Amino acid sequence: MQLLNWNKMAGNSFGQTFKVTTFGESHAEVIGAVIDGCPAGLALDFEFIREKLLQRQSGAKRQEKNEVQWLSGLLGGVTTGTPIAFVIPNQNIDSEAYQQEQTIIKPAHAHYVYWKKYGLFDYRGSGRASGRETATRVVAGCIAMQYLKQFDIQIDAFTLEIAEAKVDAFPDINYQEAQQNAFFCPDKLVAKKMAEIIQQTEKEMDTIGCKVGCIVRGLPIGLGEPVFDKLSADLAKAMMSINAAKAFDYGIGFDAVNKKGSQVNDLYNTDFSTKTNFSGGILAGISNAELLYCTVVFKPVPTLMQDQQTIDHEGNTAVLKAKGRHDVCLAPRVLPVVEAMAAICLADHLLRFNAYKNDNRRS
Amino acid sequence: MQLLNWNKMAGNSFGQTFKVTTFGESHAEVIGAVIDGCPAGLALDFEFIREKLLQRQSGAKRQEKNEVQWLSGLLGGVTTGTPIAFVIPNQNIDSEAYQQEQTIIKPAHAHYVYWKKYGLFDYRGSGRASGRETATRVVAGCIAMQYLKQFDIQIDAFTLEIAEAKVDAFPDINYQEAQQNAFFCPDKLVAKKMAEIIQQTEKEMDTIGCKVGCIVRGLPIGLGEPVFDKLSADLAKAMMSINAAKAFDYGIGFDAVNKKGSQVNDLYNTDFSTKTNFSGGILAGISNAELLYCTVVFKPVPTLMQDQQTIDHEGNTAVLKAKGRHDVCLAPRVLPVVEAMAAICLADHLLRFNAYKNDNRRS
Amino acid sequence: MQLLNWNKMAGNSFGQTFKVTTFGESHAEVIGAVIDGCPAGLALDFEFIREKLLQRQSGAKRQEKNEVQWLSGLLGGVTTGTPIAFVIPNQNIDSEAYQQEQTIIKPAHAHYVYWKKYGLFDYRGSGRASGRETATRVVAGCIAMQYLKQFDIQIDAFTLEIAEAKVDAFPDINYQEAQQNAFFCPDKLVAKKMAEIIQQTEKEMDTIGCKVGCIVRGLPIGLGEPVFDKLSADLAKAMMSINAAKAFDYGIGFDAVNKKGSQVNDLYNTDFSTKTNFSGGILAGISNAELLYCTVVFKPVPTLMQDQQTIDHEGNTAVLKAKGRHDVCLAPRVLPVVEAMAAICLADHLLRFNAYKNDNRRS
Amino acid sequence: MQLLNWNKMAGNSFGQTFKVTTFGESHAEVIGAVIDGCPAGLALDFEFIREKLLQRQSGAKRQEKNEVQWLSGLLGGVTTGTPIAFVIPNQNIDSEAYQQEQTIIKPAHAHYVYWKKYGLFDYRGSGRASGRETATRVVAGCIAMQYLKQFDIQIDAFTLEIAEAKVDAFPDINYQEAQQNAFFCPDKLVAKKMAEIIQQTEKEMDTIGCKVGCIVRGLPIGLGEPVFDKLSADLAKAMMSINAAKAFDYGIGFDAVNKKGSQVNDLYNTDFSTKTNFSGGILAGISNAELLYCTVVFKPVPTLMQDQQTIDHEGNTAVLKAKGRHDVCLAPRVLPVVEAMAAICLADHLLRFNAYKNDNRRS
Repeated sequence: MQLLNWNKMAGNSFGQTFKVTTFGESHAEVIGAVIDGCPAGLALDFEFIREKLLQRQSGAKRQEKNEVQWLSGLLGGVTTGTPIAFVIPNQNIDSEAYQQEQTIIKPAHAHYVYWKKYGLFDYRGSGRASGRETATRVVAGCIAMQYLKQFDIQIDAFTLEIAEAKVDAFPDINYQEAQQNAFFCPDKLVAKKMAEIIQQTEKEMDTIGCKVGCIVRGLPIGLGEPVFDKLSADLAKAMMSINAAKAFDYGIGFDAVNKKGSQVNDLYNTDFSTKTNFSGGILAGISNAELLYCTVVFKPVPTLMQDQQTIDHEGNTAVLKAKGRHDVCLAPRVLPVVEAMAAICLADHLLRFNAYKNDNRRS
Repeated sequence: MQLLNWNKMAGNSFGQTFKVTTFGESHAEVIGAVIDGCPAGLALDFEFIREKLLQRQSGAKRQEKNEVQWLSGLLGGVTTGTPIAFVIPNQNIDSEAYQQEQTIIKPAHAHYVYWKKYGLFDYRGSGRASGRETATRVVAGCIAMQYLKQFDIQIDAFTLEIAEAKVDAFPDINYQEAQQNAFFCPDKLVAKKMAEIIQQTEKEMDTIGCKVGCIVRGLPIGLGEPVFDKLSADLAKAMMSINAAKAFDYGIGFDAVNKKGSQVNDLYNTDFSTKTNFSGGILAGISNAELLYCTVVFKPVPTLMQDQQTIDHEGNTAVLKAKGRHDVCLAPRVLPVVEAMAAICLADHLLRFNAYKNDNRRS
Repeated sequence: MQLLNWNKMAGNSFGQTFKVTTFGESHAEVIGAVIDGCPAGLALDFEFIREKLLQRQSGAKRQEKNEVQWLSGLLGGVTTGTPIAFVIPNQNIDSEAYQQEQTIIKPAHAHYVYWKKYGLFDYRGSGRASGRETATRVVAGCIAMQYLKQFDIQIDAFTLEIAEAKVDAFPDINYQEAQQNAFFCPDKLVAKKMAEIIQQTEKEMDTIGCKVGCIVRGLPIGLGEPVFDKLSADLAKAMMSINAAKAFDYGIGFDAVNKKGSQVNDLYNTDFSTKTNFSGGILAGISNAELLYCTVVFKPVPTLMQDQQTIDHEGNTAVLKAKGRHDVCLAPRVLPVVEAMAAICLADHLLRFNAYKNDNRRS
Repeated sequence: MQLLNWNKMAGNSFGQTFKVTTFGESHAEVIGAVIDGCPAGLALDFEFIREKLLQRQSGAKRQEKNEVQWLSGLLGGVTTGTPIAFVIPNQNIDSEAYQQEQTIIKPAHAHYVYWKKYGLFDYRGSGRASGRETATRVVAGCIAMQYLKQFDIQIDAFTLEIAEAKVDAFPDINYQEAQQNAFFCPDKLVAKKMAEIIQQTEKEMDTIGCKVGCIVRGLPIGLGEPVFDKLSADLAKAMMSINAAKAFDYGIGFDAVNKKGSQVNDLYNTDFSTKTNFSGGILAGISNAELLYCTVVFKPVPTLMQDQQTIDHEGNTAVLKAKGRHDVCLAPRVLPVVEAMAAICLADHLLRFNAYKNDNRRS
């Protein structure tokens, strides 16, 4: 193993004011994070965090018992305003299995670029590329969500598409229906079809892509900065920072390409709400208090349960053997990660917004 | 006009190491920018900048003579390593026209959210929401592009879709053909259809959406940080920070939703290149030296040449009269802006990448 | 001249929320700055800015007519919340004189390190090292001061020491007296002595150091973050970023070295004010609403009006000829720069403080 | 206890490229930190870290067994380039004792400002104000020091003054002698006197101030940015961010006030070294490869072993009873903290410097 090219894997923080820094590798003892900037006085709902972490396990092949250990920032379960640090011990670590693959390059995977950039593809360092890191995002996101709830802001994610199984009505959501199935799919029949596709794909020892929708209810007017730090731009970065994300849109999104202005300009009611919501809750980069909705598309999981032709570090052809059990589709596991990234992004912008209020002026 | 809620329009910088800060309003005397972090020794190609600014004018209804005035950071046309500041004087300012509209809310436009967030919708302050600001991005982007050219990195944008006129072959581009038409559309027949659609839409006094593709050739392996600052995440933010952007994808992108892993996993040749490029040049957030390609969808221009039903600041119904002449479609005008944002993002990551090289170690 | 080592002079911004970025070189056409984050609604007092710029000229040998040209961010003299950009044209540029010195290294000056780091010591690029850059800090600082005035926060600087001429009573200041002399020295007799020392030093064709005191009145409790971003730490950085600054202290400062806790622990009155103020207005990094006071020591101006033995770029001994007319002492010219840096630092912390107020919580 | 004003204790990070974020409270279970940006390939010297932590315990009244638990970023004791997280369990926690004091305001201490800013002065949240936090800085600083050692950069701190016991020769240091006494004082006789002063002050149940010197050997030319991010400015911030720091200077420092230019301009030898070093290793904010030296003055520990007159949260007079055993002087305990902050600041600037090297240019 080479460890000597002095490169480093920086960029482990997200947010300016509600700032989350994650650490830890998939095959080390723990993963964890520090949140710098969470306001004091928030009574955490640990049961909610547990549920979201469980939801991230839904249908997962590698079963982890995600036990959060709180290191700092809390007193009696209430945030004190100081940095909140926590770790989640890793379990089910079978590094043996991984070590064998070390010189056979996995297609469509971090392996090659990590090896070339960092001079190593080690089961520890490269554990940063593992989806496991997202468990810490979920915890941090849950705290952000609970902060947002104080302002009646609510975030939910849904599975909208897996192959030909597709929800058309988004963002018109039957929230109750979505709670009834593992995909948090708002359409019962589509959910059923999704389950069948997953089953069929697994039988074919293959994997499949998916589209996830995210809805934010209760946003006030004013989140987002006008030029580079548009709410839509920061939300795009938040979502595209999730492993395997390949596409992002909000509001009318990709469909705008063949729409006319007279069709998709949202006209105003006399109470300043809009008759339609093609804008998706963000105008000119700033929230307008309509429903915020966006979608993210994830590629199929690159690790297959079938053998793949590839090469090794010397450039010789090789076969990557199917091994272990891997997920077929990122949905629904990725839903709480999508919610978490939305929450961190919005909590950050809510705190940045507050920064500029006039409340400190002397009368 | 209210000016007293103490809010502010922050977030005017992009980049960490190659950092661009823009300023100026559409109806003030100038717009401009400062680039902090451009390496010394770069001999600027002013003709290239002039061409890109002209390209941004292509087909525009408001004709501006974009004369860049260089304020600092250059000596004999060569960068000195100090901050590069420049301004572009505004011309053709007809503020009268704009003032009349001040209390009639423009649909699908910055007007309402600016008014609510900042307590004003003034033809000056709100001029930050104008597409005019993007002229400064183009100049900064040209400098970034010239820096990238030193490393043989080349960036090009193309109009891929306007309504039903659509290029299918992207990212397989006939670069020569693309130079032959105003849309930089790589397919002659599609370009012709685009022109017809624009003409027809203009006749209908309407506007239309579009999709732009961007290709980066010559990237080395290694740009991008693994977790939050993935190259794909920062590129998404860069693109979605352009006015009217509604969607972003890269590589297989939105189509991943119904693809299988065995279909889109890029397999390796023995020279470490890949047989296919569904990844789009970025793996696990890091460039892999394959062609980087992405697309951005822009909504129709919200300002219509037909009257629109709306309300005024008091909530009374009102009619927004069609006035002046406005663009029908953001393409092809937005192409140099897309190239510019890609260039700024990549120059930033190239400089961040260099930060971690081992060249300073004593032997 | 070498321009090709690709280095760059970054780090041209100060502040997180009230962010000032300066640009321009001493011998280019202009110097200038952009302020990103100044709240909207502030009616600027341009006369105040003019006076402070004049004060920065007080006794200066190179007389510049500092005419500020406002580029953006203002409407009718009132801030709009958008980035405020301005330039000050350079005058009295005699680059000829400077060019001759280019290969003779100036002692105790930016020359050598700039030449080695940037591969050039050019009268343009190295103009960033010139005290001229501080004129832009003064303008930005005046805007910060006017923002702070809305909260009844007042900043003043004084000359406390030049060689043996020394004010003992600091921070007990006779503000009226300080207005009566060019040094803003609160003691008439000391001011007279300072003038004599300056005159004598000039006669000796030499230069002399000085100590400047800065007092902030009217601060609320709560500015500053507890750990790394202590108000005292950021103030130290602000002051030490001024050219020629060699020392900084606040409150009891350097004298603390031989004081006992029982002597310098400030005890409380029953109205929560303190009986003494050895703390200097900052406790544990956070303002405590007592008088904030600090001092900065500046070394003698390195450019002498006498010949100096030195070497050239080849390492040959050489004589740096006295030429032109140069300042003898940084005081009192540097006073408005000290006030400006204090103001920028405090405006930034005031805005950061506001960020965390509870005003956005729904009742 | 009030926990509801939504304030927060942000600002827990130092550095841009070698970025240290600390967390944890004095009376929680652990304190810890994350280092984002440490290059891969560094074989940590854990014995060195243990020694520095022990040195921070030297003469301390609260004996802590500082056992570092490494959470991430290491493989076989070698850095992998990923974030390095670690915790140090707290021991000897006697929160009972602290709780009694909660409404009696401690003079010259974080208590009052924390209570007013954060709405609480809790033995947990306010534990961020404890010197205990500096243990994590020492660990992070040791890693920075080991990185710097790869470039032959060496950092050492010394006790220079405690009351009248004073070393005159700084920065001319007898390094060997300094190793011989607990104060790391380079003069044997002065060290003896320091010990006597400490003993006498303890007998008087009082505390005493001190001055610490720090020397950096082996710096290359070029660290530091010219304008705001001068090496001297960032070093000042680093040092003044240590609890109880009241003053900072470097080179000729405070003595510059009565020095003439002809006395303190460092003249050049023909090998580009300087005949004197009044500059202290930094010229115009950039390291010049001469010895870097600076000093920091710390006030007496505010917690006294004698009763103090004060007030309580209601403004009633009260007596703060002496309790427990507290340190008499910050020296020599603070020495490894000073070294650590210097190291973190320099490692950050070394990495920023590398960012701009030309090594990536194609030939």
